[in-house]
Amino acid sequence: MPDYSIRRARREDIGPIVRMLADDQLGATRDDPADLEPYLLAFDEIDADPHQLLVVVVSEDEPVGTLQLTIIPGLARRGALRGQIEAVRIHADHRGSGLGAELIRWAIEESRRRGCALVQLTSDTSRTGVHRFYERLGFVPSHTGFKLKL
Amino acid sequence: MPDYSIRRARREDIGPIVRMLADDQLGATRDDPADLEPYLLAFDEIDADPHQLLVVVVSEDEPVGTLQLTIIPGLARRGALRGQIEAVRIHADHRGSGLGAELIRWAIEESRRRGCALVQLTSDTSRTGVHRFYERLGFVPSHTGFKLKL
Repeated sequence: MPDYSIRRARREDIGPIVRMLADDQLGATRDDPADLEPYLLAFDEIDADPHQLLVVVVSEDEPVGTLQLTIIPGLARRGALRGQIEAVRIHADHRGSGLGAELIRWAIEESRRRGCALVQLTSDTSRTGVHRFYERLGFVPSHTGFKLKL
Repeated sequence: MPDYSIRRARREDIGPIVRMLADDQLGATRDDPADLEPYLLAFDEIDADPHQLLVVVVSEDEPVGTLQLTIIPGLARRGALRGQIEAVRIHADHRGSGLGAELIRWAIEESRRRGCALVQLTSDTSRTGVHRFYERLGFVPSHTGFKLKL
């Protein structure tokens, strides 16, 4: 991956990240990059929390991929830490290049480096292509993910 | 639920909580209450993190139920907080009494109180009875949950 680098997200990356969140079959109805204010407030909270790591993949100084890694302490599995991956997006112009796999492998390695015993994520059941992608990376679809909107 | 109360877990609850984690079809191979040291270390980390809330249901001064609620800040859904429920257990002697539903309803209300837009959890696909339980509480099984052991 010679033309890409992965780094911690900065405040000025929030516009490009939110455009990636909104440019998505499911995110389009839920996110709106026209008003960044709520996203900047959320970014400040994420950035101040040592258990959160929001990253971007950068190509030619532009964010073209993103994910959020959350490190969750717990009692189960002998007090194991778990790494949780959320909000994975790759810019439409950079899909199919192997970039998504590199980004997930990076998150797996970062979880390992932080002492996690497990990495977990959920994916909408309608995203069947995405499921094969995670299985190829070694993930097992062992769970059902439930959501309740408040 | 007149005979039960829900409160934040304390260090002295860790023995009873780990016994509940281990007294489970899946947890039996993963958890061992004979050595509490790794669990106490994990408890200290959970207890020090303002985004984590480990609770117990107490009956006659004994913990008979537990769950962990994690509040996760994120950018998606206009910078929404989400409440994540993990490690739900009810003591074998207290199952079928409606206590589990009360505990989950409590976690939903606590997530709402903290400003979350969503509550999420995953459940092993083999626990089909548990899935009906969450659907009755209003959860939608919209996602596939992937795990990768490190």
